[in-house]
Amino acid sequence: MEDAGIWLRELITPYDVYLHGASEILLWRRTEFQEICIVQTEAFGKKLFLDGIVQSSEADEFIYHEALVQPAMLTAGMPRRVLVLGGGEGACLREVLRWDTVTEAVMIDIDAEVVSACRAHLPEWSQGAFHDPRVQLLHTDAVQYLEHVREPFDVIISDMTDPVEDGPSTFCFTREYFRRVQAALGDHGVFALQAGPLSPPEISLHAKVLRTMELEFGHVQAYPCNAAVYGRPLGFAVASRTPIHARLDPERTAPVLDAHVRGPLRYIDAHVARGLMATPPFVRAAIDASDVVYTDAVPPRTAHAAGWEAGA
Amino acid sequence: MEDAGIWLRELITPYDVYLHGASEILLWRRTEFQEICIVQTEAFGKKLFLDGIVQSSEADEFIYHEALVQPAMLTAGMPRRVLVLGGGEGACLREVLRWDTVTEAVMIDIDAEVVSACRAHLPEWSQGAFHDPRVQLLHTDAVQYLEHVREPFDVIISDMTDPVEDGPSTFCFTREYFRRVQAALGDHGVFALQAGPLSPPEISLHAKVLRTMELEFGHVQAYPCNAAVYGRPLGFAVASRTPIHARLDPERTAPVLDAHVRGPLRYIDAHVARGLMATPPFVRAAIDASDVVYTDAVPPRTAHAAGWEAGA
Amino acid sequence: MEDAGIWLRELITPYDVYLHGASEILLWRRTEFQEICIVQTEAFGKKLFLDGIVQSSEADEFIYHEALVQPAMLTAGMPRRVLVLGGGEGACLREVLRWDTVTEAVMIDIDAEVVSACRAHLPEWSQGAFHDPRVQLLHTDAVQYLEHVREPFDVIISDMTDPVEDGPSTFCFTREYFRRVQAALGDHGVFALQAGPLSPPEISLHAKVLRTMELEFGHVQAYPCNAAVYGRPLGFAVASRTPIHARLDPERTAPVLDAHVRGPLRYIDAHVARGLMATPPFVRAAIDASDVVYTDAVPPRTAHAAGWEAGA
Amino acid sequence: MEDAGIWLRELITPYDVYLHGASEILLWRRTEFQEICIVQTEAFGKKLFLDGIVQSSEADEFIYHEALVQPAMLTAGMPRRVLVLGGGEGACLREVLRWDTVTEAVMIDIDAEVVSACRAHLPEWSQGAFHDPRVQLLHTDAVQYLEHVREPFDVIISDMTDPVEDGPSTFCFTREYFRRVQAALGDHGVFALQAGPLSPPEISLHAKVLRTMELEFGHVQAYPCNAAVYGRPLGFAVASRTPIHARLDPERTAPVLDAHVRGPLRYIDAHVARGLMATPPFVRAAIDASDVVYTDAVPPRTAHAAGWEAGA
Repeated sequence: MEDAGIWLRELITPYDVYLHGASEILLWRRTEFQEICIVQTEAFGKKLFLDGIVQSSEADEFIYHEALVQPAMLTAGMPRRVLVLGGGEGACLREVLRWDTVTEAVMIDIDAEVVSACRAHLPEWSQGAFHDPRVQLLHTDAVQYLEHVREPFDVIISDMTDPVEDGPSTFCFTREYFRRVQAALGDHGVFALQAGPLSPPEISLHAKVLRTMELEFGHVQAYPCNAAVYGRPLGFAVASRTPIHARLDPERTAPVLDAHVRGPLRYIDAHVARGLMATPPFVRAAIDASDVVYTDAVPPRTAHAAGWEAGA
Repeated sequence: MEDAGIWLRELITPYDVYLHGASEILLWRRTEFQEICIVQTEAFGKKLFLDGIVQSSEADEFIYHEALVQPAMLTAGMPRRVLVLGGGEGACLREVLRWDTVTEAVMIDIDAEVVSACRAHLPEWSQGAFHDPRVQLLHTDAVQYLEHVREPFDVIISDMTDPVEDGPSTFCFTREYFRRVQAALGDHGVFALQAGPLSPPEISLHAKVLRTMELEFGHVQAYPCNAAVYGRPLGFAVASRTPIHARLDPERTAPVLDAHVRGPLRYIDAHVARGLMATPPFVRAAIDASDVVYTDAVPPRTAHAAGWEAGA
Repeated sequence: MEDAGIWLRELITPYDVYLHGASEILLWRRTEFQEICIVQTEAFGKKLFLDGIVQSSEADEFIYHEALVQPAMLTAGMPRRVLVLGGGEGACLREVLRWDTVTEAVMIDIDAEVVSACRAHLPEWSQGAFHDPRVQLLHTDAVQYLEHVREPFDVIISDMTDPVEDGPSTFCFTREYFRRVQAALGDHGVFALQAGPLSPPEISLHAKVLRTMELEFGHVQAYPCNAAVYGRPLGFAVASRTPIHARLDPERTAPVLDAHVRGPLRYIDAHVARGLMATPPFVRAAIDASDVVYTDAVPPRTAHAAGWEAGA
Repeated sequence: MEDAGIWLRELITPYDVYLHGASEILLWRRTEFQEICIVQTEAFGKKLFLDGIVQSSEADEFIYHEALVQPAMLTAGMPRRVLVLGGGEGACLREVLRWDTVTEAVMIDIDAEVVSACRAHLPEWSQGAFHDPRVQLLHTDAVQYLEHVREPFDVIISDMTDPVEDGPSTFCFTREYFRRVQAALGDHGVFALQAGPLSPPEISLHAKVLRTMELEFGHVQAYPCNAAVYGRPLGFAVASRTPIHARLDPERTAPVLDAHVRGPLRYIDAHVARGLMATPPFVRAAIDASDVVYTDAVPPRTAHAAGWEAGA
């Protein structure tokens, strides 16, 4: 709290606070669904906040978005049809479109104001993705869209805000949601999602989400996102009906990346992708110890701090 | 900043602040070398601060200490003599002593008050390590100790505080220091150290330290520490005079861990160890782009925020 | 949040926070009744906190304590017997003992550990008061003590912590408490107390306390305490069964101060004392508009922020 | 730091921080002269910040503006021509226009964008003042305007931002400025200004400003502003070439207020006005001990925290 006058406070836990100092407020607006704030910072460049929770920063969004998208794409093999749920910044879309195998990329974001704010203020994120002719952008509810998918997708990416109570993503971490995703993928498609913080005091939400996913997908692989702006590691996951372990052997993936993915990738290469998939024992233990399954009747209920549940 | 009245503020950058809320102050003392503060927190258990910088927390010190010690030990093969520089909590020592191959573990910490405070208040960290008959504990200056090493060590771990200006570790990140470490290792020994934050806006210090190390060791491998309590990833490194790439093949390391290392390890296993060693392209690029070498004449000079240099 | 690493956070309201930066923690302890913290600061010297709420600072405690004690003493005329309830720092006692008319000064503080901590760490506050032969110090409950007073006091000072729920002072702002105080004073004695914040968004507690006092005393005069360390003005009050308005005419009080009060006073003189007694219209209006009376059955219930009640 | 996500940080001293929690950002803009931020808060209503320093809040601006304007008006007797320097909110103007004796009110604010932002977002402050036919509003430099005043004013109010280095008010606290003000007043006019914080650790700036004023005016009366939003008392002053002490006798001022001032006033009445003028001994001592005179060559130089000078 040194050199700025405006600070966006984010609770990591109720006892661990991250203060984001802003040098300019580029946008502050309350939409139908949430509160958007885009600020300029000195160290991380621009940062996007939704409902007070940082979504990504100019300096390290590449870590978040490459790590969320590329492992699923590599797992899928030669993905053609890809669906992005959420991801208003357009950076998931950008990562998807790197693949010359992709012929269709559908993006669903319920909040048109968020998408247009990102297009206006954060063009470094999307890098022209919204103009790619392979893209179809829809502003509708992800859950409803999933129910009407006819042709299965090869990859679905769920880049939702944290499941804060009464937030727009509350029902995007439940068994019913994962069932709809699975149905939209078919037996060979691959699903990736952001699934809450991964640090030991906060791992409970992640563990429960993964336990819930396992019931629908059978094969789920937890892995970390180590972008700095979130104040601690986040947990991602890849899931499929078909076995996914060991798919990311560099001997197989390096030639694919070379042949089909327009670079440069700054965070992921074939070795980093394999490395991410090695789940630490404490993460596996937390998932195994979790006995809660989230459903639409009992969705995640977290107030401020994403994964924090006292005594959890 | 929700539920606590006492907050320890740490600058990640001058514009990114981490506030650690404490429910009790277990110890606050100014020693000859630094300021110690040990607090109880709700989410991370106990936390140790030196000169206002968090060193480790009860909840995730295992991530830090396993990641700092075990890759070097695995790289070394069958380490017998190990030197720990710094590491007042005793948790590096604990990780070293897991190995039944180790016959001597020397620990050098300049500040006897820090070590005794940790022994009194943080026994969960050392878990009896200070009572192990293989251990020799000395309170002297690391630089001076290194000059008098006769028999080479197999592994040296440098677990120093950040190189804050005028702090006790200022000269533990310079070319001269690395030369002394290298001399104390011989040609086949392995060195590991904590070397500053790894996030894109702060990577400058890490990159320069690694560039400096490369001049002395020839073979240096950067890798991340993803413990949450530091508010962003830190950068560790393993270094040796002999090539270290690819040494951590799980087919070789898994049987060694099984046979010689008393567990349970909670963060490292054979696959995680290999995974950590896959350096992301942006880290390699930052090191390659760094043209500063730290020397005793021109050591790292960072004021508050560890790796932050405006405009760097 | 500039130059310190340790910050004591105090809520002025849930949306207005005062952060007290500390350069040293001189004492932190949990007693039978509350949590004590004494810190060294750069701007205000030492500060005392009880249950996370600042009590006084070395730099401006003279404003608080002169303003709390001297108007009541001046109103009383030639006070001989004085009772201080609370006031663990010993500074109320110091102000009482300035008067050569005083022959007995009784101080009641329930928490012996607070008093001994203040004597050890904050001698600048008491300035030897505890050694004055006129003083009797008792560690008992104020409410119980009041029930056993036989000879009436000329002045009673209530220097309690804010009525935080479940705190030791919860029942020191109720009608029953004021009745006991009134009984211990007789018809001509004068009562003074600290009664919560005075700023417009927080005036509700003060207004209700004063309304409650009026029922017992008949004559109550609200006045402000403008010490800086509390982050906003506090409200004090003087009360008596006999009319107190206009008693503080400088033509009467200046000679009394000269003749009977050992100086130097740094905040109060005869003109300042009269000036304080001029209640601003918004304060009078708030008291008049208040229709709640605190009783032992329904005492003040404030959680963190002293006088804050949403929507009040 | 409880219930808001956006916090405006203000340094009271470098070791005492006030965090203003905002529920909405109504305006953020960088003008030619300064940075404007208008926010909605829960406890204080709307707040205006210029260059990160709170100017006034909806909940207690009446305390600030009545206290700044009315004592000077009462001292002047029957003021007709009044000049307001600064005061972009329009609330000084509102207080001036309460007087039916006033025939001309000139307001000079260098920053037209601030004035129009306040007119748009803070109409509760000006309450129609800008539409009063007695008002002349000019956007020019106060110093330059003063040089061209021909007919003397009865009252001049200087409601400038704090003299932050390189801010627009740097030269509005110097001997040359006060000389120009004095020339624009004539021998019987009265000057009032906001002159920095009044708390003991910060009183140095106020003391020096008042010492500087005394050289030009001869008669200067320091008095406090006890609005809460500034986190500590501010220091105001009234100055004139003719003696001003004792002018505010309620027997004289109460009938004037009744006859000529359209109410209701919520903070000032005849008794409060006299009471404010009673300067506490520590304030008088600080002014007397001050030996610095601010000049255009050596103006106040404070960086962040208004009156703070280490070791002062």
